Amino acid sequence: MKKLNIAVAQIEVVAGHPDINTKKIIAEIEKAKAAGDQIIVFPEMAVPGYLLGDEWENTAYVNDCFEYNNDIKNATKGIVAIWGNVDIDQTAKNEDGRMRKFNAAFIAQNGEFVSGSVHKTLMPKYREFEDERHFYSLRKEAQDAQKSVDELINPIEVVVEGNAVRLGIILCEDMWSDDYSINPIDILLQKNADVIINLSCSPWTWRKNNKRHSVVRSRISKHPVYFVYANNVGVQNNGKNIFLFDGNSTIYSPNGALINVANDYTEETIRTTLFAETEKQLQNPTVSNEKDRAELHTGLIYGIRNFFSTFQSKKVVLGLSGGIDSALSVSLLAEALGAENVYAINMPSQFNSQTTKNAAYTLAQNLGIHYTSISIQNSYENTIKELEAAEFVRLDGSNMKTALQLSALNKENIQARDRGSRVLAGVASILGAVFVNNGNKTETALGYATLYGDVNGALAPIADLYKMEVYDLARYINRNGEIIPETIFTIPASAELSADQNVDEGKGDPIFYPYHDKLVRAFVEFRLDPENILHYYAAGNLGEIIKCDQQLIDNYFKNAASFIADLEHKWRLYKLNFFKRIQAPPIITVSKRAFGFDLREAQNGIYYTRKYLQLKKELIGG
Amino acid sequence: MKKLNIAVAQIEVVAGHPDINTKKIIAEIEKAKAAGDQIIVFPEMAVPGYLLGDEWENTAYVNDCFEYNNDIKNATKGIVAIWGNVDIDQTAKNEDGRMRKFNAAFIAQNGEFVSGSVHKTLMPKYREFEDERHFYSLRKEAQDAQKSVDELINPIEVVVEGNAVRLGIILCEDMWSDDYSINPIDILLQKNADVIINLSCSPWTWRKNNKRHSVVRSRISKHPVYFVYANNVGVQNNGKNIFLFDGNSTIYSPNGALINVANDYTEETIRTTLFAETEKQLQNPTVSNEKDRAELHTGLIYGIRNFFSTFQSKKVVLGLSGGIDSALSVSLLAEALGAENVYAINMPSQFNSQTTKNAAYTLAQNLGIHYTSISIQNSYENTIKELEAAEFVRLDGSNMKTALQLSALNKENIQARDRGSRVLAGVASILGAVFVNNGNKTETALGYATLYGDVNGALAPIADLYKMEVYDLARYINRNGEIIPETIFTIPASAELSADQNVDEGKGDPIFYPYHDKLVRAFVEFRLDPENILHYYAAGNLGEIIKCDQQLIDNYFKNAASFIADLEHKWRLYKLNFFKRIQAPPIITVSKRAFGFDLREAQNGIYYTRKYLQLKKELIGG
Repeated sequence: MKKLNIAVAQIEVVAGHPDINTKKIIAEIEKAKAAGDQIIVFPEMAVPGYLLGDEWENTAYVNDCFEYNNDIKNATKGIVAIWGNVDIDQTAKNEDGRMRKFNAAFIAQNGEFVSGSVHKTLMPKYREFEDERHFYSLRKEAQDAQKSVDELINPIEVVVEGNAVRLGIILCEDMWSDDYSINPIDILLQKNADVIINLSCSPWTWRKNNKRHSVVRSRISKHPVYFVYANNVGVQNNGKNIFLFDGNSTIYSPNGALINVANDYTEETIRTTLFAETEKQLQNPTVSNEKDRAELHTGLIYGIRNFFSTFQSKKVVLGLSGGIDSALSVSLLAEALGAENVYAINMPSQFNSQTTKNAAYTLAQNLGIHYTSISIQNSYENTIKELEAAEFVRLDGSNMKTALQLSALNKENIQARDRGSRVLAGVASILGAVFVNNGNKTETALGYATLYGDVNGALAPIADLYKMEVYDLARYINRNGEIIPETIFTIPASAELSADQNVDEGKGDPIFYPYHDKLVRAFVEFRLDPENILHYYAAGNLGEIIKCDQQLIDNYFKNAASFIADLEHKWRLYKLNFFKRIQAPPIITVSKRAFGFDLREAQNGIYYTRKYLQLKKELIGG
Repeated sequence: MKKLNIAVAQIEVVAGHPDINTKKIIAEIEKAKAAGDQIIVFPEMAVPGYLLGDEWENTAYVNDCFEYNNDIKNATKGIVAIWGNVDIDQTAKNEDGRMRKFNAAFIAQNGEFVSGSVHKTLMPKYREFEDERHFYSLRKEAQDAQKSVDELINPIEVVVEGNAVRLGIILCEDMWSDDYSINPIDILLQKNADVIINLSCSPWTWRKNNKRHSVVRSRISKHPVYFVYANNVGVQNNGKNIFLFDGNSTIYSPNGALINVANDYTEETIRTTLFAETEKQLQNPTVSNEKDRAELHTGLIYGIRNFFSTFQSKKVVLGLSGGIDSALSVSLLAEALGAENVYAINMPSQFNSQTTKNAAYTLAQNLGIHYTSISIQNSYENTIKELEAAEFVRLDGSNMKTALQLSALNKENIQARDRGSRVLAGVASILGAVFVNNGNKTETALGYATLYGDVNGALAPIADLYKMEVYDLARYINRNGEIIPETIFTIPASAELSADQNVDEGKGDPIFYPYHDKLVRAFVEFRLDPENILHYYAAGNLGEIIKCDQQLIDNYFKNAASFIADLEHKWRLYKLNFFKRIQAPPIITVSKRAFGFDLREAQNGIYYTRKYLQLKKELIGG
């Protein structure tokens, strides 16, 4: 093959704003021409954005995005450009009765389209993905035409300076074909594609990039070709979840070596000369613990910064209790938005210790943020007094009276709601600021938070981190010196809502985080049922399965009865407290499964399978 | 054909509880035997329920549901039973890498399965439907086997008392094939099915049943056969939306006449003798305005009652302002749950008129519910005082101070949050009650409500009704005499949060409901963009398109500039206030498109298409 200069433009795609995206694409094409590139590749759905919700049903919007194809095409004099956009067929229907749409790649050269667009074959429909909801797949086109899928998947030939090159163009999921009966890359390679070009819009999750390297290598192992992976950067959301797009666009040599990798969360164009490179040694990047934390940290900072970029104000308000969750949250916010934009409020009642109040103040000082303390004691007492004085009268002639008797739990929740809805929401609206939620994933799962209290906020930056991960990342915050005071790591995790939660007396949350973190993850991410958990417990390998020290489990539960009581308690909390998650804020998503639109739930109560009940009976009788 | 006694068991399916559902199915089979039925049909997904969210990924749960098939099969001595359940293939993967699952119908007779299960062909994936997410379709099976779909769709032959009958069994969407390239009913009829049996789990929306009658008639017009439609009753949810299943199971004669129709929202078995009936005259049920309202009313009452049935307590708390929304809400609650379970609270501040306070009291009296008044004035003043006294200090050495200056809007929102989060949430938790949200669809769309204030509640019973529909249904509540005082209909709709909203001075909400209701519906349900709206406005047929009196529009806007200013203002409110909907409660869904999981949104800000901007320029220049 003749040498070919190829560039991958890892742009930041702004979902819902094709004007901004198109302008950027055209500017990158111009820069590529100047740099001597002969082909430039952009990510999947680079024009409209990908996570639009049902805005895909807005025909005017879709047509508008489609029209931008002409602007891009017209900019391709002297270069080949390949970009992701929605394709439409006005003459046919989608299966929802609306205009037929495709997730497509467009190819233009010298101001003209080269062939038709390439339609995505494999449609992801797990987690946040909804391709089947909005787009018609190449598979359905094949079935309608009574053809095999193979017949419809073909390389696109372009001629660059007199030399033909066969481009095997695919879209994102088309490379992740392990769970499908169709392997688009194989088909393209059998048809002698000279290079595979994958346009992606693929969100970051921990360690996904290493997985991708091995997938690429296995795909091209039998027919070695160059592999170009173009991903975007940016942040896109579907309401309940905010996804981070890290980019990491990569050009692989035919032996799977990494010729060029774009940086995380950076707009960057990478380039290489295809069919000319000396074969590189295969690189197997490994991720250290430190790198892993650094990636998570970078992702969260980027996510916060990008989320706020859509608001007029960068001001943020949060509660600062002196506990670990708000400590991590405020540290991330100060780094992402600047200390000058962070307004932290300590809101003590009679139950808050001087220890945590001091810790909150010291942390605020270490960060140099705005700080105040607003006591909720007066309002708390007033609310108790007013509610205790209230009396319902039944207006059916009976005049039956109902007084209100407050339990200890009622009083705890009054404090939480006073903080979340009266103070934080009040201050945020006065400052024209956004206020954030400091909850972690473990408490979100178990409902250890008060609706309209600490569940409040317009953004939940750390709600996809389990409690022990919160501690771990907080340690990372202190990597270059103490920002988060040591006290915050050493006091027990506590809501400080009653005398039973006095941190100075070593009292705290009724959750054993080192185990319950893992149990929750097993429910949420491993999708395990109590039946599975109990089965593994009985077999003695629960620790191995849920990646928790088995000794810890054995020490914590003295027998099967106590294990089962805890399991059922936590399953119950997890299931019933979904009603709080329905009303919880958007979560920056970093795990393989986050609450919200990623993990879709229903309010269907508690259920135990017959096998679970049988196994329980075998273990503890009755 | 030989006569055949067929029964349709319109059972209430409880999603997530296969034990309850299977018990009911077996009981119905026994009753059918006693009644001399030869075939009994149950709805789609009668064992597991349909709306389970991602609980479909819980393999233990799915296996458990699948195992219940044996219990049902064993109960079929002397009868043919057909029921919906999940089918599994442990040897193959779904495209999410998990166990392969099918949305299937099972057929058993005399304690044995008759043939394999029937797999659903057409997979709905619009609105709340997620079949493609969880189930492998017969279409994919055909593609994998390199066969046509036709080859895999076949009638099931059963022999009843020595006579063979060919059952054309399909699942729900398989009959709604207009937007698909495959028509399963046609295929079955070409293969000489003697009867079409459709197992459905189809939620109610206004006037859907009439649409179904005409679809059935068109499907069987060329090959007249009996058509049996089995739908369940009950309420199923996907978190954000609560769907009503009205049943309305129907047996149609070969000419499309209605032989037998099960009642709305009633567990009922309907039966007929196939191949024996005298042809009935074709009935074309028409829905009067009154019937339409009655259907809506019945649906909402059923939905509320059923939603509460999952809670231990039937007690409900709500705010009763003396406005139309809470008036309708409380009337529905009192009817659904009994006046003895309803606790209404009037929460006046200085801005609430004696007029609305009196109206609220009279309404509570008319309903005979529990009532109290808790003033928020003291707490409101205290919050203002505390926030005005608060001062942030920048802890970066600069000691920069930031005081809080409250705007009029800030003060309005403080009242709303005091009501929603301090009083209502407080009282509800003390009583162990659920508290409800009284918002309507128009204000939900435009964000005319305060987050953590009137957006609160565990259930939004009327949030899928536009404001004028609220008035209309409130009139229906008074059909047998005044329950809702006339004042509530005649005062202006008002939030009463400031002196500018004084109802006694005829002041109220900044929304012109007769038009804005329709505009919002055009955005939400007709999926129209400002480009479309402006286009129709310019063409003079906007009224016709959005079903609003054109004269009303022309009178309300004096020129294109004022029309456009309002259009952009409302589009902006609709788009930006999605952040409130993310945290809003579950909505009883009655329209063709409700906020929540039905209409999926993203926080992507405001965008106008190029065609919109061009048209705007043509109309008003600039």
